Amino acid sequence: MVVVGSGIMGERLSPGNVAVALLANTLATGAGLVFLILTFGEISGAHINPVVSLIEMFRGNLSVKSFFVYAAAQISGAICGVGAANLMFDLPVFFLSIKQRSGSSQLLGEFIATFGLLAVILTTTKFRPSITAFAVAAYITSAYWFTSSTSFANPAVTIARSLSDSFTGIRPQDVLPFIFAQMLGAIAAFFVFKWLLRKVNDER
Amino acid sequence: MVVVGSGIMGERLSPGNVAVALLANTLATGAGLVFLILTFGEISGAHINPVVSLIEMFRGNLSVKSFFVYAAAQISGAICGVGAANLMFDLPVFFLSIKQRSGSSQLLGEFIATFGLLAVILTTTKFRPSITAFAVAAYITSAYWFTSSTSFANPAVTIARSLSDSFTGIRPQDVLPFIFAQMLGAIAAFFVFKWLLRKVNDER
Amino acid sequence: MVVVGSGIMGERLSPGNVAVALLANTLATGAGLVFLILTFGEISGAHINPVVSLIEMFRGNLSVKSFFVYAAAQISGAICGVGAANLMFDLPVFFLSIKQRSGSSQLLGEFIATFGLLAVILTTTKFRPSITAFAVAAYITSAYWFTSSTSFANPAVTIARSLSDSFTGIRPQDVLPFIFAQMLGAIAAFFVFKWLLRKVNDER
Amino acid sequence: MVVVGSGIMGERLSPGNVAVALLANTLATGAGLVFLILTFGEISGAHINPVVSLIEMFRGNLSVKSFFVYAAAQISGAICGVGAANLMFDLPVFFLSIKQRSGSSQLLGEFIATFGLLAVILTTTKFRPSITAFAVAAYITSAYWFTSSTSFANPAVTIARSLSDSFTGIRPQDVLPFIFAQMLGAIAAFFVFKWLLRKVNDER
Repeated sequence: MVVVGSGIMGERLSPGNVAVALLANTLATGAGLVFLILTFGEISGAHINPVVSLIEMFRGNLSVKSFFVYAAAQISGAICGVGAANLMFDLPVFFLSIKQRSGSSQLLGEFIATFGLLAVILTTTKFRPSITAFAVAAYITSAYWFTSSTSFANPAVTIARSLSDSFTGIRPQDVLPFIFAQMLGAIAAFFVFKWLLRKVNDER
Repeated sequence: MVVVGSGIMGERLSPGNVAVALLANTLATGAGLVFLILTFGEISGAHINPVVSLIEMFRGNLSVKSFFVYAAAQISGAICGVGAANLMFDLPVFFLSIKQRSGSSQLLGEFIATFGLLAVILTTTKFRPSITAFAVAAYITSAYWFTSSTSFANPAVTIARSLSDSFTGIRPQDVLPFIFAQMLGAIAAFFVFKWLLRKVNDER
Repeated sequence: MVVVGSGIMGERLSPGNVAVALLANTLATGAGLVFLILTFGEISGAHINPVVSLIEMFRGNLSVKSFFVYAAAQISGAICGVGAANLMFDLPVFFLSIKQRSGSSQLLGEFIATFGLLAVILTTTKFRPSITAFAVAAYITSAYWFTSSTSFANPAVTIARSLSDSFTGIRPQDVLPFIFAQMLGAIAAFFVFKWLLRKVNDER
Repeated sequence: MVVVGSGIMGERLSPGNVAVALLANTLATGAGLVFLILTFGEISGAHINPVVSLIEMFRGNLSVKSFFVYAAAQISGAICGVGAANLMFDLPVFFLSIKQRSGSSQLLGEFIATFGLLAVILTTTKFRPSITAFAVAAYITSAYWFTSSTSFANPAVTIARSLSDSFTGIRPQDVLPFIFAQMLGAIAAFFVFKWLLRKVNDER
């Protein structure tokens, strides 16, 4: 809801200037992550991203069954959020995006974006959990601009963004490759940081 | 004063571009909430919103009499603030806004905005009170952009904004429906989070 | 240096749009206050504002002699900073601003801006000193936009800003009234918060 | 990668308005420093800047050999990052920048920028290490705007920025003078703050 709503608002208020719209979208998303993680961290652990939950399952912190329940909740929550955003802006509840996002450079963007997100989460939750909300928000704020794909980095959000059309959308046929790149990035980060954090532990 | 003053300034400096004006307004409001809550938190609890005080009354943290005193102070404070902003910008002390804000999608926006605000407040004050100022500021920064109504989410501010005219204003006839939607959103959040936070407690 | 340098940069990069230039200037100043206060807080108490030092003298935390030494250091530091900014941008070391800032509404702006700044400082240093840097930065970020004078709120900075010309400047003849309004605002805040904070203490 | 990627993105989305592109670039870099320092602080000390490592060597916190290993890692990491950014945006892996950055005022900018960066790091790591990430990010956010050179302040980043072309680039022939000015600024800060912090210690 945060991403799509602010995308619609940004595009409406700044019709000719996507940079200003993306600035607003970045601000809304970064601030949105701060409040979401601070609010839901103590209730549910603030799991809002299926690839993060997937990695938590790999690490043994989440059962296979819980993972599927979480993922279903994440995806349906994201879809409801987009529906609410569409309704608030007098649009149909759901309608498909026509924004093309394909090609290897976009997928490289998603691989890097998700790799970085997991790097931030795996490291800060280990050393300074109270700071994770701010680190994740700072990461996404930055990655919106330094990756070519504007860092979706979340399969639930990727699916949901195909159900509304603004510059933040994605065509339905581009969704699966994005999710595939995100999963690869997350798994790569899992192995790299498993090795790196074990080395850090060994040296202490 | 913060909202209206920065709205006038933003509109004057950026006459053709509401997106840039709203970015400035968002920045001023988000930063404004940080300093207001940090400054007055230890003096008065930083109650600046009648619907938040209303919910505190429901929760038994505020007597009925105190609630009415608070609400009167909040509304007159907000009105004085708008008067000061108008004077600073060489405008009449008070004059009515002509900015139309009506229709069900706007009211849905206020319902969602206030629901979310209370969710943030009820949860963070319970688990991490030292972080509430930042969480509330992050929430409003985000909600300015992701809701269609730009998240008034405060009856005192809603009344006061009708007494000056810029893109942040609201026509007097649109004030009551906004306040009604805000109260519904707050009460819904009260019940949802009462249930949710009790469940969290039970599981511990 | 921070205010004037970013003012020149903002005006050069955004010639037709003062709103974007002021956004950049706000960002630079807000972030600048964070790093200045965090860096010099433990060395000198981060006194960078003569009216704040004046109030500290009234409160008995600073001797009369120290106050004059501080004020001289603050004013000469600010002037050196503007000289450095001018040199960095290939301008004469010092040259007078032609930016008019006069009239009662501007002076009301400075009165309110400085009153608010002292309110933030007097309260947060008492209750949560570790948070003062962020509260002051948030206050100025907000006040740049909600006051008509863009919140100079500092006599040393006011004097220094007359020695370079950009939209952040001030004509030499407008400097003294600004400083007078700032002192009135600071003194008013001193008395109001002396009374208010004593009342808070009494009730505990 | 953060600086160059967001530079390309900013320039593409905002072709006629460098101010908006630099705002986005500032936001991405400031937020990028927050997440990088929070993430790698506990793993490697988050050394990402050869002049900072140089000063740590002067202070006896890093052996000469380690310094050279660090600097090699920093430079090759920055170059890989630019290569990744170029690939993400469908550009050649490496190509030279044509952005001219020369003249004494630019070098004064780099001297001041690096002096200030070391001032922030030397002071906050001594008194409040948990806050260093935020102080450094705030400093660079501010210095991007108040220095004429937009504060490269890092030899590894300076070299890497010559290998891609956007408004954040630098011509290869301008790289060495920039690095020289950065080293002078860092060494000056080392001596000034060695003296200043010893005086602070003596007085306690």
